[in-house]
Amino acid sequence: MQTILVAGAGKSSTYLIHYLLSHAPRNKWKIVVADGNADAIREKIQGSSFAESAVIDITSQSDRQRLVKEADMVVSLMPPHLHIHLAKDCLEHKKNLITSSYVSPEMREMNGAVKAAGLMFMCEMGLDPGIDHMTANQIIHSTQRVTATITSFKSYCGGLIAPESDDNPWHYNFSWNPKNIITAGIGGAKYLGNGKEIEVPYENIFDGNKKIKVDGLGSLAYYPNRDSLRYLDLYEVPEVRTFLRATLRHPDFCKGWNAIIRLGLTDDQDKIETVKTFEQWLAQKTGYDNEVPLREHVARYLKIAPTDKLIHMLEWLGLFGTAPIVGQPQSSAELLLEILLRKWEMSPSDKDMVVMQHEVEYIHRGRKIMLTSSMVLKGENREYSAMAKTVGLPMGVLGRMVISKKLTPPHGVLIPNMPSVYKPVLAELHHHGIHFIEKVQ
Amino acid sequence: MQTILVAGAGKSSTYLIHYLLSHAPRNKWKIVVADGNADAIREKIQGSSFAESAVIDITSQSDRQRLVKEADMVVSLMPPHLHIHLAKDCLEHKKNLITSSYVSPEMREMNGAVKAAGLMFMCEMGLDPGIDHMTANQIIHSTQRVTATITSFKSYCGGLIAPESDDNPWHYNFSWNPKNIITAGIGGAKYLGNGKEIEVPYENIFDGNKKIKVDGLGSLAYYPNRDSLRYLDLYEVPEVRTFLRATLRHPDFCKGWNAIIRLGLTDDQDKIETVKTFEQWLAQKTGYDNEVPLREHVARYLKIAPTDKLIHMLEWLGLFGTAPIVGQPQSSAELLLEILLRKWEMSPSDKDMVVMQHEVEYIHRGRKIMLTSSMVLKGENREYSAMAKTVGLPMGVLGRMVISKKLTPPHGVLIPNMPSVYKPVLAELHHHGIHFIEKVQ
Repeated sequence: MQTILVAGAGKSSTYLIHYLLSHAPRNKWKIVVADGNADAIREKIQGSSFAESAVIDITSQSDRQRLVKEADMVVSLMPPHLHIHLAKDCLEHKKNLITSSYVSPEMREMNGAVKAAGLMFMCEMGLDPGIDHMTANQIIHSTQRVTATITSFKSYCGGLIAPESDDNPWHYNFSWNPKNIITAGIGGAKYLGNGKEIEVPYENIFDGNKKIKVDGLGSLAYYPNRDSLRYLDLYEVPEVRTFLRATLRHPDFCKGWNAIIRLGLTDDQDKIETVKTFEQWLAQKTGYDNEVPLREHVARYLKIAPTDKLIHMLEWLGLFGTAPIVGQPQSSAELLLEILLRKWEMSPSDKDMVVMQHEVEYIHRGRKIMLTSSMVLKGENREYSAMAKTVGLPMGVLGRMVISKKLTPPHGVLIPNMPSVYKPVLAELHHHGIHFIEKVQ
Repeated sequence: MQTILVAGAGKSSTYLIHYLLSHAPRNKWKIVVADGNADAIREKIQGSSFAESAVIDITSQSDRQRLVKEADMVVSLMPPHLHIHLAKDCLEHKKNLITSSYVSPEMREMNGAVKAAGLMFMCEMGLDPGIDHMTANQIIHSTQRVTATITSFKSYCGGLIAPESDDNPWHYNFSWNPKNIITAGIGGAKYLGNGKEIEVPYENIFDGNKKIKVDGLGSLAYYPNRDSLRYLDLYEVPEVRTFLRATLRHPDFCKGWNAIIRLGLTDDQDKIETVKTFEQWLAQKTGYDNEVPLREHVARYLKIAPTDKLIHMLEWLGLFGTAPIVGQPQSSAELLLEILLRKWEMSPSDKDMVVMQHEVEYIHRGRKIMLTSSMVLKGENREYSAMAKTVGLPMGVLGRMVISKKLTPPHGVLIPNMPSVYKPVLAELHHHGIHFIEKVQ
């Protein structure tokens, strides 16, 4: 009997755990699900006799090591900063590891040791990063096979709300870790634009007002996602002059979030202990002097008309309200998160929607060609979300193929950019409704 | 406020009802779900304030008419023989109707009256029939646009069990109406083979041992599905010499079911009141004389070795057992259904799998081309099955587009073979993970 350790039983784990459990009986696997929250585990394993619940403190090395030691493979959905501990345990006990998180600098440093141990630490194996790497490299490799030269590569992805479930002026709901929204773009972004390395500071991330068209959905706004340059080497597109990874949102969202940043509401260092109500908070952040009504003051502060839909969006969040602030939020970021958790919560029947689009320009036999490859996938409801499916299944599928020896795992700290991984994984994802449509112009 | 009446809250209705409910708030629709079973309705509508439960006796004309009168559109998932009553009500009260059932002769007779009334009665709008018509005609029309001549058209579809949930020697579970299995092929089948009309009597439907290959799945067996000739005119392929619609199953299933038929176990006219145990039943059906053990006798009867896996498959159904038959089944067909309902029941976490493949041969500029278009879709579990999704969503999507005037409904008793319907519907199904991959050789 082989054992797969799944570390983390949060939002994104439903499909991953169900997938592994569905393959467990024939393969005689035991799926050990570890989390600090016993209820979350119970919800996910639904009394399966092939699953085992492990309620542990993931920060306790002995707890972790006991589980890692007994596992044949580890799949981690833990928050990114905890991965490094698990990775060290996996190296010590010689276990393959799969995660959906970005390769951190510490993780990258382990590459030599992981290779030497003959192990696979496959990172960035979710949706974005994950499916984007796999499909991008599939396009790049197939383009290069016909000796075409890729001059521009732009890749967009977003977890959105399906139009039919969209009932708020921000056009956004949480289908993944809410904290990631608050900190989105906080480190700025970098990309290659027309041969130049472009750096975008945090303050300007959301103000670009740039849009793309997605078939069947119309216009979506995007903002640059972290450091695209990091992937230039991994994608092997030497002649490329534009290289961008970006995040998709509804245009109103970007406009609104840009205002949120300008109002300083994502600040996690300010002290807001003295403010008692939401309007006091907004007043403090904007230096309100009572000369005009607060709405008008905020409109002036943002250099917009008081009738601008932005004011309505802020109002919808309750920011002009006299309701008392409950609890003791230490910073604006903390208070903002609390507000959004309530306002952007999915109801059980809400459908989310994942959109990914690659736009590739290449020269083939002297002709400039524009290829668009897109995926749009709607979820069924909050539990069976498109986000949980697209984040969880790539890890599950790769895990199954490696442990059942259908795929020889490459060695090192990796991202899924190699055909030996993306080909079989994408083929199976297709049977689960995850797939792209290509258009060439 | 517009009202959509959904008649029938059975297995295939989950996705349809959820889909309509998810679009109800923005469109201000009321979704009335009518069924004889209050629990089934409750399960599907999950307390939505946009849904209304109508527990009715569908055979009561006054019950039906009251609901039809108040509706702006009717979507029916009732058993086929009840559709005609609902259709008459719809004609009388001038309401559009969508169903997933085959066009019955009585329904076809209503065509003139339905057209004259300016109504759309869209039938065969599920998976098969339904998605097969839409994708087949999409292929046919796009092939004809390049002035190619289609010489062979074969279309296969099956509701199967996903390999990971497959734990029985028949490789089959019920993802749809179990009664349809018992009566499958009972009227024989017709198709066009190499220019000749071929009729297959019931006794030979499952003995063909014919197979196709599906990418990623390997070989599947098929048997001809009803009267393919009926679609020759509807598909408009005048030069075609082979035209076949067929049902896909695991090869072992066809072998086993062929034996079931030869043993007379699908007979719904025989009298089996006197048999007390399963082995007595089998003995009676095969004229057992106690000379050799029953297993051996049955093997001889079927002209196979006693070690053939068929014997194991029959054994797995309990047919050689001495267990007493409970209840008072009137016929073999009735008893067989009772057995299969237990044996082939999906567990809540079982995944089903829908497979559809079109194989088209055409001549283009003197060259013979073979086009394969395939869909494989796995379900999430018993409730969110691929079958419920592929049967229910086409009706939901068409219903939404018609009632919200995004699509001008064609008039008459129809199947979805026209571009004005299949284009927008297939585009939206794609966002729900339902789509095909084409290969040309």
